[in-house]
Amino acid sequence: MHGTKLLVGQSGGPTAVINSSLAGVIKSATDQGIQVLGMINGLQGYLEGRKMDLSSLSKEELSLLKTTPGAYLGSCRFKLPEDLDDYLYQEVFNALERDDIGYVLYIGGNDSMDTLDKLSRYAKAHHIGTVFVGIPKTIDNDLVGTDHAPGYGSAAKFVASTVRQIVQDIEVYRVDAVTIVEIMGREAGWLTAASALARRFEGDNPVRIYMPEVDFDPERMLSDIQMLLKEEHGIVICVSEGIHDSHGRLICEADDTAVDVFGHKQLSGCGKALENLIRARLGIKVRSVELNIPQRSNAIEASLVDVEEAYACGAEAVKRALSEESGVMVSLARKEEEPYACTLETVPLSKVSNGERLFPEEWILKGDIGFDPAFEAYVKPLIQGESRPPMEEGLPKFIYRKASTHK
Amino acid sequence: MHGTKLLVGQSGGPTAVINSSLAGVIKSATDQGIQVLGMINGLQGYLEGRKMDLSSLSKEELSLLKTTPGAYLGSCRFKLPEDLDDYLYQEVFNALERDDIGYVLYIGGNDSMDTLDKLSRYAKAHHIGTVFVGIPKTIDNDLVGTDHAPGYGSAAKFVASTVRQIVQDIEVYRVDAVTIVEIMGREAGWLTAASALARRFEGDNPVRIYMPEVDFDPERMLSDIQMLLKEEHGIVICVSEGIHDSHGRLICEADDTAVDVFGHKQLSGCGKALENLIRARLGIKVRSVELNIPQRSNAIEASLVDVEEAYACGAEAVKRALSEESGVMVSLARKEEEPYACTLETVPLSKVSNGERLFPEEWILKGDIGFDPAFEAYVKPLIQGESRPPMEEGLPKFIYRKASTHK
Repeated sequence: MHGTKLLVGQSGGPTAVINSSLAGVIKSATDQGIQVLGMINGLQGYLEGRKMDLSSLSKEELSLLKTTPGAYLGSCRFKLPEDLDDYLYQEVFNALERDDIGYVLYIGGNDSMDTLDKLSRYAKAHHIGTVFVGIPKTIDNDLVGTDHAPGYGSAAKFVASTVRQIVQDIEVYRVDAVTIVEIMGREAGWLTAASALARRFEGDNPVRIYMPEVDFDPERMLSDIQMLLKEEHGIVICVSEGIHDSHGRLICEADDTAVDVFGHKQLSGCGKALENLIRARLGIKVRSVELNIPQRSNAIEASLVDVEEAYACGAEAVKRALSEESGVMVSLARKEEEPYACTLETVPLSKVSNGERLFPEEWILKGDIGFDPAFEAYVKPLIQGESRPPMEEGLPKFIYRKASTHK
Repeated sequence: MHGTKLLVGQSGGPTAVINSSLAGVIKSATDQGIQVLGMINGLQGYLEGRKMDLSSLSKEELSLLKTTPGAYLGSCRFKLPEDLDDYLYQEVFNALERDDIGYVLYIGGNDSMDTLDKLSRYAKAHHIGTVFVGIPKTIDNDLVGTDHAPGYGSAAKFVASTVRQIVQDIEVYRVDAVTIVEIMGREAGWLTAASALARRFEGDNPVRIYMPEVDFDPERMLSDIQMLLKEEHGIVICVSEGIHDSHGRLICEADDTAVDVFGHKQLSGCGKALENLIRARLGIKVRSVELNIPQRSNAIEASLVDVEEAYACGAEAVKRALSEESGVMVSLARKEEEPYACTLETVPLSKVSNGERLFPEEWILKGDIGFDPAFEAYVKPLIQGESRPPMEEGLPKFIYRKASTHK
């Protein structure tokens, strides 16, 4: 026996499609007469009593939600204690009972699935019937147990498209120049690897792609650049924010002596660090571009496949929850046949929360020049189709909670 | 008397629509039976003998050109000597005569119009009949003699849209945090001001916009942030790359003592400098986003008004040239009535090359909080409508010269 309402939250970093999953949850649950509550700022906010009714969103609002970036409910970075006897668990379940919650859905990555897994284990240990279902989300694509994670396809499409447009820009001058593009993904290079899709022909820019799965060798990069500049003027290099040397030291780690114009300690990304290295050692024109927040917030050129899969994962989570399937995350399983299609399955939360899916090293060709065709076959279906938010007076129209950042 | 062919070049920094103007030139000239040659890498490349036939571009290639960012012909940064008796002028006109050129069209900004003005004056002084017509181009919108410059509308739309999406992203956490967005435009704040369009309601982010037309006061910024953080968690600030203190010192100028992880001198933008200042002085979470190259290369969300105006300016330049109007730049003149419309006029090159149109100071409210409604009325028509490049396998398809960067 458990409550009748469904509680849904969003957690971790935003993506272009985390709200598509939320829209899928709300539509599917309300269609089946289930009342939907939203945690504001995830489990942390819910424990502070912040929640909202989502069943009353209009059809137009739900439609806007599907193409709105960010996280409509707000997010949190919150870790539940390892000790299931901690008082916090009792607090969570008291709140769930008070709100008549029977189903808890959480949209997030590894840490969010870990949170959900702990709640699920607590419930089982205490014979509480509340159902817990996770919905995958991450631009990093590092979730185990699923072919890929919603959020990755749109981010990959944005990275490939933006790098291609940067290449169109930098090749206009006949001056030796290097452009470095820094891409998100500290541990796993899935998103960085997507920059290879920007190539318009064999041998095209980006000519080198540095992944966090491979030890970075600055001297090798410098000699490669010198070699490449014998043939071409404009060179584009893509690099993961998480590259490190053979001692495991991150390239983006600031030197303690680095201070800026105001005399303050300088924290810089690895793109900027490589920019300075190349300028100092080779004396050539160099600039760095950090793709930064837009990688996870750009909804203007989101992948339609990604948006639809995110929405479907939300709807599937409701279906599984109402079937009393608990302690699982919805996952995407790719059919072996062409054309590309995925079925929706589930995977135990415990399997997800303890794992991290790195990029297969055997797909990385010679360390930095590109990838096995198997990667292209894997990623290309995920970036297909154009999802566009509605436009109003020349700008994208989004849904938002006006007081979302009010104190 | 002069030659029969038309020579066209692109110069200065690329934009999303400089190729639209080129497409307009080629279409209009070939329609009238005029053969079109392109300077490869501007006048500098042309003097080195690099040129190409453009009349043979197919209809499909011309259509692609219209929505391709970068500069198809390549660009240059090249200054002609002030002394018109310099041998270089003789070289230019020898090349034009050899190639049977009667009309020279140059797409660019202030410096490019200065180049064209000098050639035009040389021709007049030597009774040479060659016709010189300029086509305006700049994301900075700092050209005098025209209501606005093609390239500005698309960049303004990109800035406003991207800032709005960054705001959707940053407001998901309930943690005091400042996000700084650095925008191009060293002398004129037209593009930075466009970030105000991102606001979804009164008082929305970006809460402060720092323009290069106003002396920047770091202490005022810090106290404003502290005041704003009493009401809101997430604050977004937009800043021009060219902000300077009351002594005229650029905020982005690096301190000589700044070195990075490799021990090399650190050059950082003003966004990064403000980030470090805020972190050091207020001890809060802060990050900076430099919009960087995509501001001028993003063609995914270009303004349709901008693309069409750029194309029309190219076609108009051909018309004016064939009417033997020389020493002028095509300009846009806004009609006073609603709805928005522009007529195509011309302005003497000498007037353009010597001027720089700064943002009207009387439009800047209290230095940094926003702009007079007159600015919104000015800029909004320029960002209307969506121009989308054709998509192929999930990514934008562009035209390019494959060997453009070969040595």
